[in-house]
Amino acid sequence: MTRLLLTIQYVGTAYHGWQVQPNGVTVQERLQDAIEKVTGVRSGVIGCSRTDAGVHAKMFCCTLDTEYPLQGEKMAKALNAHLPKDIAVYKVREVAPDFHPRYQAVGKTYTYCIWNGKHRNPFYEDRALFISKTLDEGVMDKAAKGFCGTHDYKAFCSAGSDVEDTVRTVSECSVKREGDLVTVTVTANGFLYNMVRILVGTLLDIEAGRLPSDAIKQALDTTKRQDLGATAPPMGLYLEKVYY
Amino acid sequence: MTRLLLTIQYVGTAYHGWQVQPNGVTVQERLQDAIEKVTGVRSGVIGCSRTDAGVHAKMFCCTLDTEYPLQGEKMAKALNAHLPKDIAVYKVREVAPDFHPRYQAVGKTYTYCIWNGKHRNPFYEDRALFISKTLDEGVMDKAAKGFCGTHDYKAFCSAGSDVEDTVRTVSECSVKREGDLVTVTVTANGFLYNMVRILVGTLLDIEAGRLPSDAIKQALDTTKRQDLGATAPPMGLYLEKVYY
Repeated sequence: MTRLLLTIQYVGTAYHGWQVQPNGVTVQERLQDAIEKVTGVRSGVIGCSRTDAGVHAKMFCCTLDTEYPLQGEKMAKALNAHLPKDIAVYKVREVAPDFHPRYQAVGKTYTYCIWNGKHRNPFYEDRALFISKTLDEGVMDKAAKGFCGTHDYKAFCSAGSDVEDTVRTVSECSVKREGDLVTVTVTANGFLYNMVRILVGTLLDIEAGRLPSDAIKQALDTTKRQDLGATAPPMGLYLEKVYY
Repeated sequence: MTRLLLTIQYVGTAYHGWQVQPNGVTVQERLQDAIEKVTGVRSGVIGCSRTDAGVHAKMFCCTLDTEYPLQGEKMAKALNAHLPKDIAVYKVREVAPDFHPRYQAVGKTYTYCIWNGKHRNPFYEDRALFISKTLDEGVMDKAAKGFCGTHDYKAFCSAGSDVEDTVRTVSECSVKREGDLVTVTVTANGFLYNMVRILVGTLLDIEAGRLPSDAIKQALDTTKRQDLGATAPPMGLYLEKVYY
């Protein structure tokens, strides 16, 4: 038995997130379908995280235990021939038999894209949040800096999560504009449920003056979810990188 | 009656091109539907060119004659509320009553995108041609330079076109790489039917050694379509800019 680390990309629009679930098609299910077609065996894969419905991944890692002899480029090609158009494997490599894609990840980067033109852009439909009112990305970037450091991020965790330790270290949090595209980038050693989407909703509220400029700092102190903004919708969110 | 110039964008994947036709939904039809919903009147629109099925536009111009009082930003917003997700108006301005969006265009820029990674990229599915063998963009760029100038481009025109004058002036033709994305950019005072797609097919054949490096120059002399490569598929083609 060999443990393979598969690195994949997907446009999440058509999926109910990564993880297999009773109602709705998921990325994990489609990947397991393709693996079965290639290897002839139904095998489970373990992911580096869960992504929600509509969230995208430019880099997502998962492991597969298989006795099938194909590896590397050839295995990636074989799987891609059986995957739907919106999912693709771009790297396959062998890892140690005890390698775990979630526990061994030392960090991840997420980005959140906002199409900030006057009118909606068909090329960013389902791939960015559309906001027509011009955003001051400088104000957002300044507020984002308050998100960095080692803190208890409990306030930035949606209900329904059973995680006990909510302390994380955020090493990068910035907001940049390129033309009409505003991108929020967050790198941390780990993320709580909806952490980036609550951050983005909060940054938008701070920019609009609906929340005070130090709302993030305050919520890190109070650890209260209600001190923050709404959870931003999923279509702007991308799992950008996983670090091992 | 006021003549409005609408500037729109569309992802062409779902459409049988711009122009209304008996079989298959087109961008023009969907736009006319939206105009009817906003103004209450069924009006025709005249486009700056025809695009084929599956071809995209980041800038496409068309005129609408209407007595409806809305203009500018407000008209764009009203139309966008009734257009499907893959089409959007981003500019509306009044033009002279004799303004013609095709005859008055002094030039256009098309781009053609090739995803040149080892594996297919879900984010470029239907938005770029996928070629896994690494392309030498330097060879392609050098060959592309031979496309510039004022020539009879008859060889670069698909059968079925009834255009008589096939002389055009190409002011820019280049091939550039950004990571795994290779982009062909062509600017001319006018384009023949499938001109860019035949050029791209030819550049790919020259790069692969299936055609001699001076194939473009030769075909401009012979004016024979058969001296060139295949017509590249539509999904990589973008109408990028229209100049007035």
